[in-house]
Amino acid sequence: MAENVRSYKAKKITLGHVQEFDDTVAVETPLTLYVNDEEFVTLVCTPDCVEELIIGFLASEGLIRGPEDIQSLTMDASDGIVWASLPRLSTPARRMFGKRILTSCCGRGRTSFYFFNDARTARKIIGTWTVSPEACFRAMASLQQASQLFHATGGIHHAALAQSSGDLVAVRADVGRHNTLDKLYGWALREKFDATQVMVVFSGRVSSEVLLKVAKMGAPILLSKSAPTDLGLRLADELGVTVAGFLRGNGMNVYTHAERITDENVTK
Amino acid sequence: MAENVRSYKAKKITLGHVQEFDDTVAVETPLTLYVNDEEFVTLVCTPDCVEELIIGFLASEGLIRGPEDIQSLTMDASDGIVWASLPRLSTPARRMFGKRILTSCCGRGRTSFYFFNDARTARKIIGTWTVSPEACFRAMASLQQASQLFHATGGIHHAALAQSSGDLVAVRADVGRHNTLDKLYGWALREKFDATQVMVVFSGRVSSEVLLKVAKMGAPILLSKSAPTDLGLRLADELGVTVAGFLRGNGMNVYTHAERITDENVTK
Repeated sequence: MAENVRSYKAKKITLGHVQEFDDTVAVETPLTLYVNDEEFVTLVCTPDCVEELIIGFLASEGLIRGPEDIQSLTMDASDGIVWASLPRLSTPARRMFGKRILTSCCGRGRTSFYFFNDARTARKIIGTWTVSPEACFRAMASLQQASQLFHATGGIHHAALAQSSGDLVAVRADVGRHNTLDKLYGWALREKFDATQVMVVFSGRVSSEVLLKVAKMGAPILLSKSAPTDLGLRLADELGVTVAGFLRGNGMNVYTHAERITDENVTK
Repeated sequence: MAENVRSYKAKKITLGHVQEFDDTVAVETPLTLYVNDEEFVTLVCTPDCVEELIIGFLASEGLIRGPEDIQSLTMDASDGIVWASLPRLSTPARRMFGKRILTSCCGRGRTSFYFFNDARTARKIIGTWTVSPEACFRAMASLQQASQLFHATGGIHHAALAQSSGDLVAVRADVGRHNTLDKLYGWALREKFDATQVMVVFSGRVSSEVLLKVAKMGAPILLSKSAPTDLGLRLADELGVTVAGFLRGNGMNVYTHAERITDENVTK
């Protein structure tokens, strides 16, 4: 569609001094998605990897299981419109989007789901796949190296899928932090990449919505350089996702399912 | 409603060492708003200043002009539900929420609005109110001092209204960055505080949505410690809002309407 960064004239003001310069700013674009000719949602995003973004978003919302459920995806780049034709979708798409489930929420037994589509699509992660702390630190260092766009503009979130070695297999960037995860999910679905033995490495906070997207992808470990919220952690605990936050340099705080991060050299 | 932070058991893992500790994590709560008995939206928020949040959100969406348009506001704290009765609202509330305006968007003359309610409620800021660079630096320093919650948990956004001296008149915090601005707007409306001669001081990025909320409040200056997006800046330019980003210590980048930040001592 368009470029991802744009030059913008700015003034650098410090105490007693003003200097004009050309700054590089992240592009932010509204993208309106129509599903079966019905307006569904407007995503505000960095306009790259749009097909992956749409596939990941539709899968995350439970409207498709993979690209094979999409008959056609048509984009009008100049107007920022995407039409998705989903012939197998039986109910009007909007009906359940953003609908709250009130009966299962807040303080009664299962704490967590608050949107209908989340309860349909988020699965409990099982399995005993483990990684070493060193691999976690290496994966985050690699994400930060890959974040060239971030260093140029600021204000861009990054997410990556990493193997047990810590090596990254895919990196995506977006002004919207949820979009980075949808782009990764769309990539995995399109490439038929098995996301059940990878770490998701993420620049942003671990909110409930972020956690749900990771669980829907099927990834057992989420590493963030930022803080988690309590609802994000309650969901992680329930859905079996290992969450580490404040991963900076060679340190991190592991909040849930710490059994997946293990190393014989670690002193307990 | 509930407390804003919660204790959570975590493991601090560094190379070769594991230590258990009690971390403090920000509470994140879904809050579903019904307008005239119709489900309108679910906000995910820090559960304080909820009445201000709802007033600010309703005003920002153009459903009310102030608290006087609300007949009643009823909250069920245990279920996270808020009912607003708005007798003067003539159309069903949901009809225009999230609806894209396609004709005025992206590349044809006026660049900017993409939601119907924004075009109805965002006003162009006029006036020659000015502040000194020193006042901007002081305001951001005060916001960071006020961010006690942030230092305890991370992952919380803060916003404040500041006078031309740099002194803060109101500070609000939330896990959702837009909510901090809605809480401030709700406070200003309830207190009948004139927001046309204040700076908004903000911990988060200046995206299009953030800029629109500031313009709706009527505030002429937005200071952020973070990066702007291009759509945020194009809106700021068009709506007459002064935007400074990367405000850290005694330096900042001013992107739009720099004429409002002035000081005779500054060397041009």
